[in-house]
Amino acid sequence: MRCAIDVALVDFSMARSRSAAEQDLPVEVIETLRGFLEAGGKRLRPVLCVVGWHAAGGEEIPAAVLRVAASLEMFHAFALIHDDVMDGSDTRRGRLTVHRTAATLHRDGRSHAAADRLGAAIAVLVGDLALAWSVELLHSAGLDPAQLARVLPLTDAMRTETMWGQYLDVTMAGRPTADFDQALRIARYKTARYTFEWPLRIGAALAGAEARVCDALSAYARPLGEAFQLRDDLLGVFGSPALTGKPDLDDLRDGKHTALVAVALQRADPVQRRLLRSLLGKADLDEHGAAQIRDVLVATGARDAVEQLITARLDRALRAVDQPPFPIAATAALRQLANAATVRTA
Amino acid sequence: MRCAIDVALVDFSMARSRSAAEQDLPVEVIETLRGFLEAGGKRLRPVLCVVGWHAAGGEEIPAAVLRVAASLEMFHAFALIHDDVMDGSDTRRGRLTVHRTAATLHRDGRSHAAADRLGAAIAVLVGDLALAWSVELLHSAGLDPAQLARVLPLTDAMRTETMWGQYLDVTMAGRPTADFDQALRIARYKTARYTFEWPLRIGAALAGAEARVCDALSAYARPLGEAFQLRDDLLGVFGSPALTGKPDLDDLRDGKHTALVAVALQRADPVQRRLLRSLLGKADLDEHGAAQIRDVLVATGARDAVEQLITARLDRALRAVDQPPFPIAATAALRQLANAATVRTA
Repeated sequence: MRCAIDVALVDFSMARSRSAAEQDLPVEVIETLRGFLEAGGKRLRPVLCVVGWHAAGGEEIPAAVLRVAASLEMFHAFALIHDDVMDGSDTRRGRLTVHRTAATLHRDGRSHAAADRLGAAIAVLVGDLALAWSVELLHSAGLDPAQLARVLPLTDAMRTETMWGQYLDVTMAGRPTADFDQALRIARYKTARYTFEWPLRIGAALAGAEARVCDALSAYARPLGEAFQLRDDLLGVFGSPALTGKPDLDDLRDGKHTALVAVALQRADPVQRRLLRSLLGKADLDEHGAAQIRDVLVATGARDAVEQLITARLDRALRAVDQPPFPIAATAALRQLANAATVRTA
Repeated sequence: MRCAIDVALVDFSMARSRSAAEQDLPVEVIETLRGFLEAGGKRLRPVLCVVGWHAAGGEEIPAAVLRVAASLEMFHAFALIHDDVMDGSDTRRGRLTVHRTAATLHRDGRSHAAADRLGAAIAVLVGDLALAWSVELLHSAGLDPAQLARVLPLTDAMRTETMWGQYLDVTMAGRPTADFDQALRIARYKTARYTFEWPLRIGAALAGAEARVCDALSAYARPLGEAFQLRDDLLGVFGSPALTGKPDLDDLRDGKHTALVAVALQRADPVQRRLLRSLLGKADLDEHGAAQIRDVLVATGARDAVEQLITARLDRALRAVDQPPFPIAATAALRQLANAATVRTA
């Protein structure tokens, strides 16, 4: 199915490339976006959209559903590309980020600073295009008017909510606190809901799901989405860059207000707290400083505590599909995805 | 009618504010966007959308049409906010730009560089929200399925095209050439079409316009859109900042590849060309340097030539509504708008 989704994405960008070439427009923008999409990604959101379709009793997967699923991956590309510009990240999916690639491509006699500014501008634009194209993929999916009427409000809400989460994330960065609930809230808006709940509910809405199906999907998706982000927080600090494709210093340098950091700040003694406060968010944090932070995250028990939070949420998600109103194949897929999303290395 | 459109915009952002407050989300984002929308703007795109509705025989203006018109203003806000981040502009509509305002608001113990980065990140996000909300305004306008099916492909095409134009504008900045056609192409994609042709055609499509109405609207809109951007180029260099709300140095400092500059480079003698090449795109260009550039733009006859290009295009636009297939009131509005768009000081 991953493959069918990639076909939908490639079809769309090929059509865009052709029409750009016909109008003598630079195709490098599309190549950049396609390179980003092809560099990796778990296609989690499209897969969940299709599982939502099945959960609501949809059987064979129509091309229109695949295109809606692909539109969620395009939205995800938008979110990541802009996120990387905002955070000033250098690598993603094991490659240079879009703004870094664009800066290199357009060096060409420019000063470093000018090329970096241009790279950032291009990445903002490529992200804008990805957002616009995620909308177009949805509009041109071939949905009937009733499906369109059901799905558009969900996708509208998803976009707004994700941007709220990103806003909280960006404005809190560099000033993490011991406020655990706030950290979870950021995670919920920024990632959890648009990764799990919205894709499932959008897929279910396409199949005309009843309310009890939607409710059961939400009961599964909410804890799992949080567990997913908690795992991401751990991987961002303790993961292997070779597997995650991202540096393991970025989250610490950005001083992200994660649940992991909030728990550590709650449990830290004065010396540990001073260390966290002085090193988290330091733009030039080095490996030695990062190791000191990791030591505190382990010594305070924050790392273990977050592992337990993940396990508790995974359990809750699995209980929600214990006796669900779904066809058996959909339930099996949801179980498998729950494990894959929380027990992972990348 | 301007007022009715502002009501639609305010209604939407009030609803968004309420729902943000209910979820305990920071309303400052919405305040920022609303401040931007209220600070000015000619509401040209919504007005043209409504005129397109009338031109196609639509009579009383339904709330749904006003909401679509408002969505075009929201799209314009997105384009300007991101444009200002990309260009690093300080003022717009006589106020600080969104990224500058956000940087000031979040100074709060941060270094200047860190506050500037955060300001840019927030402006990217506010622009993203404006783009998402322009889509939502359209989706939730209350259009019937047939209207929606006609309008969505037009708005999708408009978004992509505008982003292409912006891409060309950004990548050519700092390296203007004597290529007049390329300068006009940038103007067409970046501004002309989404300011005139798309709003008119979207309004007309809402009313179910016949092909000959759409063709006549395009014949009017295309030259006029170019004339509008040519006027903008002149105002960007020779306009009064007190009237335009923008500094008169920005375009020169950015070294924008405008038709004005292309004509000047074509006509310049070697000394004048050297002067343009050395000063255009200079980030720290001062008033003295700007005055030198303006002298060359006048001495080469480029300024007069662009005035003539504007007049020729205005004439072409007016001829297109000489015997148009429109109701008389719509024709009168189109005539009046043509003059307002090309003979203006702001």
